Amino acid sequence: MNGAESLVHTLLASGVDTCFANPGTSEMHFVAALDRIPGMRCVLGLQENVVTGMADGYYRLSGKPAATLLHCGPGLANGLGNLHNARRARSGIVNVVGDQATYHRPLDAQLTADTEGWARPVSGWVRTATDAARVGADAAVAVQAARTAPGQIATLILPADTAWNEGGVVAEALPVPAPVAPDPHAVRNAAKVLREKKNVLILLGGAGLRADAQALAWRAAQATGAKVLAEMSNARVERGSGRLMLERVPYAADVAIAALAKYEHIILVNAKAPVGFFAYPGKPSLHYPETASIHVLTRYEQDAEAGLRALVDELGAPEVALPDAGPRPGIGRGAPTPEGLAQTVAALLPEGGIVADESVSFGRGFFQHSHAAAPHDWLQITGGAIGCGMPLATGAAVGAGGQRRVVNLQADGSAMYTLQSLWTQAREKLPVTTIILANRKYQILIGEYQNVGANPGPTAMSMLDLGNPDLNWLQLANGMGVEAARATSLEQCADLMQQSFAQNGPFVIELMI
Amino acid sequence: MNGAESLVHTLLASGVDTCFANPGTSEMHFVAALDRIPGMRCVLGLQENVVTGMADGYYRLSGKPAATLLHCGPGLANGLGNLHNARRARSGIVNVVGDQATYHRPLDAQLTADTEGWARPVSGWVRTATDAARVGADAAVAVQAARTAPGQIATLILPADTAWNEGGVVAEALPVPAPVAPDPHAVRNAAKVLREKKNVLILLGGAGLRADAQALAWRAAQATGAKVLAEMSNARVERGSGRLMLERVPYAADVAIAALAKYEHIILVNAKAPVGFFAYPGKPSLHYPETASIHVLTRYEQDAEAGLRALVDELGAPEVALPDAGPRPGIGRGAPTPEGLAQTVAALLPEGGIVADESVSFGRGFFQHSHAAAPHDWLQITGGAIGCGMPLATGAAVGAGGQRRVVNLQADGSAMYTLQSLWTQAREKLPVTTIILANRKYQILIGEYQNVGANPGPTAMSMLDLGNPDLNWLQLANGMGVEAARATSLEQCADLMQQSFAQNGPFVIELMI
Repeated sequence: MNGAESLVHTLLASGVDTCFANPGTSEMHFVAALDRIPGMRCVLGLQENVVTGMADGYYRLSGKPAATLLHCGPGLANGLGNLHNARRARSGIVNVVGDQATYHRPLDAQLTADTEGWARPVSGWVRTATDAARVGADAAVAVQAARTAPGQIATLILPADTAWNEGGVVAEALPVPAPVAPDPHAVRNAAKVLREKKNVLILLGGAGLRADAQALAWRAAQATGAKVLAEMSNARVERGSGRLMLERVPYAADVAIAALAKYEHIILVNAKAPVGFFAYPGKPSLHYPETASIHVLTRYEQDAEAGLRALVDELGAPEVALPDAGPRPGIGRGAPTPEGLAQTVAALLPEGGIVADESVSFGRGFFQHSHAAAPHDWLQITGGAIGCGMPLATGAAVGAGGQRRVVNLQADGSAMYTLQSLWTQAREKLPVTTIILANRKYQILIGEYQNVGANPGPTAMSMLDLGNPDLNWLQLANGMGVEAARATSLEQCADLMQQSFAQNGPFVIELMI
Repeated sequence: MNGAESLVHTLLASGVDTCFANPGTSEMHFVAALDRIPGMRCVLGLQENVVTGMADGYYRLSGKPAATLLHCGPGLANGLGNLHNARRARSGIVNVVGDQATYHRPLDAQLTADTEGWARPVSGWVRTATDAARVGADAAVAVQAARTAPGQIATLILPADTAWNEGGVVAEALPVPAPVAPDPHAVRNAAKVLREKKNVLILLGGAGLRADAQALAWRAAQATGAKVLAEMSNARVERGSGRLMLERVPYAADVAIAALAKYEHIILVNAKAPVGFFAYPGKPSLHYPETASIHVLTRYEQDAEAGLRALVDELGAPEVALPDAGPRPGIGRGAPTPEGLAQTVAALLPEGGIVADESVSFGRGFFQHSHAAAPHDWLQITGGAIGCGMPLATGAAVGAGGQRRVVNLQADGSAMYTLQSLWTQAREKLPVTTIILANRKYQILIGEYQNVGANPGPTAMSMLDLGNPDLNWLQLANGMGVEAARATSLEQCADLMQQSFAQNGPFVIELMI
């Protein structure tokens, strides 16, 4: 057995059965091992940022890590943007990067690069295999690292000779530590704050955004008069009818600062105290009051639901019904507006649907208009690395077993970073409906430019405007084997959504906004 | 004057007048400064690897650095693949990366990443600006570093507050050191080897591949019985009628080893002794004989032409005519073959044409069939980071002032990594004819897989085959505003090439191979 075969056997034994791949020459023995050993589903992406973004989406839905297969330092580099997002989402990924043979690396051949150096900033764990006999054990540790709460990127760099040499040994799966139990002192402290203080915010992130955890947070808040919010960027929020009508911390600095101004205490549940996405001249970087006290109920590696349950018990907070979100909205009418699109999605999204949201400027107000949708999962871009939405939608569809409809709300500028995702959706016949929000500009940047104090002139617009020539998403989608149609009204968009939901496979709606 | 304005003024004063850009929020003050201060041509790329690859192509043709404009760590990360290629090409680039404000960085907002850590492996020079008053001086040093022979990537990271704060000071251009003069001892040693030894190879790289340097190398070789070759991967080779019929070191390990087996001495001219692109089990990593002696005539930072001239003088080598490449070939006929396509390009390429070559497996035999083309420049992928060809072609067209036809020989699999380049070609109306070599598979990898010892089975083919669904390059090109047509024969390809050469702007030929 060679090292590559021991790697595949060990991954399978450790429960990793999906591999998002863009291989190269130095990975051919790994590819051959995948060919010979049954059990691994291999999904090809035509560019590495698609591959890594798919692995992120897969984890968010399935809760278990996939493997990637990337080619040398530059192949890894191409995928770093979405690994950055995955790191911020705390997604577990077994990030396998093939590389030059150990004895070839010192010769500095053309493709040789600082693979470890590039991997380290996004990885919780990095190891370069040194010996075929150790690859199995390395892989088992990588899976363990990837699965350790809250989930992290474990990068295993595989020099070609450690893959092709004989002497591979399959390693048994290592135990996955359970999330760390909540700290009783932190629970008592949070309860004391909630009982004794006014203007308290419970801020939910990570695993605190699952439906049961949200309901517990609401119960604690109802018993004490506190408020509950979600962080601004979230890996996965369970929401829709029968769940908490949870709002997020706003994106825009002024709006966020105003929304948080009243809080004197913030209790963090797998969350981080809100700071600006960017700094702006003369505006504070902290979006909560400098004088507010920050209390940690649970850290990222702790069990958020257990922490909230302990908090509710400590408070003796009674069972309480969630507010009723009311009936599902009807579909929007006429020209597309953010509210109208949100209502339309809420009206049509099937139960168990998944929204992959990289809507950027157009989608900021979505939450408040979609609480009454059928129960669904909502995935966001977590690290601000543009080009996340389409790969995330693709990987989420795989992670959900191909049985749940994914709606990708996708800004057109961001879509262009990883449009190759559509080809994978077509090849794998994934149930993804992409709604391209076609404003043909970097609208968010035009807004930011105006914040600088002026309207953009011709040179600035040459970097902010995506017209000249207009992108044609029908042709782009068709060119990768995906059916597509254009909508200029919400009614047309609704018709196309319904049509796409009724069929298998992907569909692209170019919504002219 | 703010820091961003001092940056733009300093870049212009230092001769940097082209900026390849994909900006974000943290770069809005830089964009505003570009808007207010005339003189900088800004070229937008819709993904950062397009941006950095364009800067590489621009340098290879113009010989001077462009600036880039990238957005934070993840924006840089998206462009690292082609920065890797640019590093291997020794291209000068002033790589400007906007980033979080200095005081905001410690807050670890979503987009915050290890920007310096990612930049370092591709950069000869890295600096993070700390103060608006120093940005001008930083920029002047960056340009100096980028222009210092042989050319390198100078990364200037610009925290947002160093751009927006007042107090900017324009810096004067710093002197650019001339390439280091050849070492007389190295010249005498090379001459001695050439006079006294047999089986000597003069290996040309970098600036040694300009026409005058090649002619000098030929003269030295003719006087002494030595042979001349180019390295396998080259940033730019001047070739065609009236120039040296120069062959390259072959790519395939066995072929390269056989071709180099006879050499006992290798004289390097801005080149590196040939090693394998990859290692293979049981094959040597060095492609020249272990017993061969390696002699350095000129290092990368030295003046190759001056070194060769000194060598010719030391040898007293007489003037000698270059061999005649014969008449231009006619266009190929019938089904596309590598030889036929090479002949067709050689037949039709106008004088001063530029070939951007990412043809991968199909294009390896091109050189020998195109020596009699009109004089032209040939650009290759230098670092093996796939996705180089289309951005390189785009940037080369800009670097050549839009007056020279670029033919991009482009493998389809590699094209998908940076297809967004086509949009920039359309927007800038660049004279680029892209010939997509559409075999609908990763042919190079299928060959490598077979080298492993078997034919790929279904799982392997799921990662090596690009059919299912087929990519349609007509639709993809049209979707980005570029005219396109399909050719199934060399005659059709020739007709479409001629048609595209006669018009302004880009064109895509999908050649079914």
